[in-house]
Amino acid sequence: MPSIEQIQYVKAPIGKVFAALTTEPGLAAVWTDRLSVTPALGAVNTFHFGEGKPDRMKVVAFEPDRRVIWECIDSDPQWIGTEISFELEQRRDKVAVTLKQEKWRAVTEFYRFCNYNWGVFLLSLKGYCEDGKGLPYQDRKF
Amino acid sequence: MPSIEQIQYVKAPIGKVFAALTTEPGLAAVWTDRLSVTPALGAVNTFHFGEGKPDRMKVVAFEPDRRVIWECIDSDPQWIGTEISFELEQRRDKVAVTLKQEKWRAVTEFYRFCNYNWGVFLLSLKGYCEDGKGLPYQDRKF
Repeated sequence: MPSIEQIQYVKAPIGKVFAALTTEPGLAAVWTDRLSVTPALGAVNTFHFGEGKPDRMKVVAFEPDRRVIWECIDSDPQWIGTEISFELEQRRDKVAVTLKQEKWRAVTEFYRFCNYNWGVFLLSLKGYCEDGKGLPYQDRKF
Repeated sequence: MPSIEQIQYVKAPIGKVFAALTTEPGLAAVWTDRLSVTPALGAVNTFHFGEGKPDRMKVVAFEPDRRVIWECIDSDPQWIGTEISFELEQRRDKVAVTLKQEKWRAVTEFYRFCNYNWGVFLLSLKGYCEDGKGLPYQDRKF
């Protein structure tokens, strides 16, 4: 099954990077400011983008400063059932953040657009963790 | 063989988008300002990033306002032999730009970092074509 796989390097404390990926203030600054997030295993987090139903992500792995995995349980039909993981690894003065979205059924135009958008997500993550300024959905041009 | 595939939507005249992807001023603003580019089939374009040898790309397809394809003939060993294509399609008030880098031998950490960086490239392309401001290598933080 096709996957999206990217990596980003962030010069910030690993705890700050993990918080950016798992807490409501962090994900509000990085991804979308309309959200409901609980940083805990088993939680179901919701993320609103534009109109329509929110995306709902169940936290199926939660290992502080190491990794978090979401199972998408509601979203565009092509996202439902995909798994999104963020793995963190300390590398001298940087944290390597590996992002994967696995279990796509096919490489579609939507896959291609999501792949692009995960790149913007990782750029936003770096900006937020290093300089305090992310690039969430509400600040972007489409 | 693994591919990188992304799409971006740009609200600008299709000729401007094609020029951004095929001319020296365009690619200087979008990708790297140390380059040598000839917008023609068969040309070998060079792009410098940081220290070391430049990347060399042979233009193996050149169809104005439709598509351009580069064959990478010198770069990181993982890039040599890959093909990078940009396909343009008018969609009402937007131009859809499909980027592919095909013929990777494996999904490696470098593949993942390049996938991320192609996202930044497409963000830069949009910024340059819509607002006159790209995000080339020299303006980025790594």
